[in-house]
Formats: sequence, structure tokens, C-alpha cells
Amino acid sequence: METATANDHLFVKMVLTAWDKQNKSLIDLTNQLGPERLAEETSPGKNSGHYLLGHLVAINDAMLPLLGFGQLLYPELEHIFIKSPDKSGLSKTPVEELKMALSTINEALNENFARASTEEWFGRHTVVSAEDFAKEPTRNKLNVVITRLTHMAYHLGQISLLKK
Amino acid sequence: METATANDHLFVKMVLTAWDKQNKSLIDLTNQLGPERLAEETSPGKNSGHYLLGHLVAINDAMLPLLGFGQLLYPELEHIFIKSPDKSGLSKTPVEELKMALSTINEALNENFARASTEEWFGRHTVVSAEDFAKEPTRNKLNVVITRLTHMAYHLGQISLLKK
Repeated sequence: METATANDHLFVKMVLTAWDKQNKSLIDLTNQLGPERLAEETSPGKNSGHYLLGHLVAINDAMLPLLGFGQLLYPELEHIFIKSPDKSGLSKTPVEELKMALSTINEALNENFARASTEEWFGRHTVVSAEDFAKEPTRNKLNVVITRLTHMAYHLGQISLLKK
Repeated sequence: METATANDHLFVKMVLTAWDKQNKSLIDLTNQLGPERLAEETSPGKNSGHYLLGHLVAINDAMLPLLGFGQLLYPELEHIFIKSPDKSGLSKTPVEELKMALSTINEALNENFARASTEEWFGRHTVVSAEDFAKEPTRNKLNVVITRLTHMAYHLGQISLLKK
């Protein structure tokens, strides 16, 4: 095992700073738009802001088991906002509840992030096998944060189209 | 100066892999949509796909001087696609030319990326002063790639709304 160096700490900090920035943008945008505008489609026939917000909250929640930090805090979100499309006919968790869920999930993620050592960050996440990880060491926990912040940015760009 | 470790190389690879993935998505999406659909607004009254493509190509070009790799290859793009809005009335560089420019710019970026040592990646980019960099060592060249790939994902999410 490598000894952690100053660069290792720096890199974890760079990724977590980028992650925080995306989450802050999501919260700001959600507050700015409000439930009524979020109910609108981001483009004609496309996902609503409400659905995309729920989708992003559900994906953050799914990071808890994926990173080995515990179970889903809001398992019902997966069915509504990941496994089903916007126009599924399912009743959507209201925006205010989603905002509270996001806050609780991010608190749990941040507590675990703060506790994780550099070795843990460069360790494998729970969905990759030890064999595959030996071949592809980029499939580590830190990489999950990179892919999830990119995913968040993608949908934030869409939700931002609801601004007048 | 820290000695480069296996983890250092690994996270440079993680960031460059994420960067490549975004660029590949941009190229695929551009090819899939074609100039006619790209000319449409991503949402009523919002930026067209054509403008956003030009914007992303111009931002990639601007990474060359920012990272100390050389001058802008297509300086005219900055005026049309960064400093001016979509509805500026300026004539837009055609989609096919933008695609060729993107290919040339990315080739130049990738050549320089492949040559850069870990020490260079963790060194300061050209817009941060030595004093500020001493205080904020996260403002390094690798972090520029993280912020730019996030920026690209944001606009890719918008362009993708043009898919039928």
C-alpha cells in the first residue's frame, strides 16, 4: 500500500470541493425556482425540473450503499425517480420533502467523506469485484464522486433552463 | 516537491478518463443531431445547440493558453461563442467547421496532456499568481480539467434535450 502524500490529500480535496459546488448549485437553483416552476418541463416533452430534482436526490442517496457508508435513507425515491420515468403516473415526493431529504442525505455523505482516509478513497467501491478492481484501479470510491458530480452537472444544466 | 506516487498517476488518469468521456459524448451527440437540429433552441427562448457547441469548442481552445500549452488555435471563436450571446446577430462558424476545430483542439490538448508530468499537473495554471497558488494549491492544472469537464457536462445536458 502506498503511503498517502500531500498530493493525495489535495486531490481528494479538489474532488470534494467540486462535489460541494454542484450540490450548492442544485440547492440554490431549487430554492430560486420553487415548486411551481420546477413542475414545468425543461424543454417541450422532456423531463420536468421536479423529476430531475428527485432523480438527483435519489442518486445521492444511492451513493451511501455504493460507497459502503450504509443503507438507502429514502428507498422509495429509487422506484419513483430512477426506475420509473417522469410520466409514470406515480405520485411524486413533493419538492419540499425532496429538499429535506437532500439535506439529510448530504449530511450523511459529508460525515462519511470527512472520516474516509486516502486509502479508503482509493479503495474499491461495493459494486466492483476484487478481481476487476485489480485490473481497473480507477474504479475506486473517489471516482464514484467524479462520475456523480458530472451526472449532477448534466441535469443541472437542464433544470437551469427553467429560469426565466 | 513531493515525489509522484502510484495514486498520483491514478488520479490524473481518472480525471483524463472523465474528460475524454465528456468529449466523446459531445462528438457523438453533435453527429447524431446534425446541423439542422442543432440550430434549434434547447428550450423556448434559450441557447441553441449550435451556439452551445461553439461555446464548448471555444472553451476547450481557451484551455491551451490557460494550461500553458500555447496560444488559441481559433481566436475568432472567443468573440462569437464566449463574449457574445447566442442572439448577438454575429454570423456563427458552421457546425462542420466547429467539429473540425474541436478535433484539432482536442488533439493539441491530448498531446500536451500525454507529455505532462504529475508535477506539472499539480503545478499552477497561468491565471493564478504564485502567491495565491501557495495559499490555494487546489488551483492547479488538473483542477482546470475537472472544472471544464463539469462545465461541458452542464451544457451537454442542455444539448441532449434536442434529441427527439
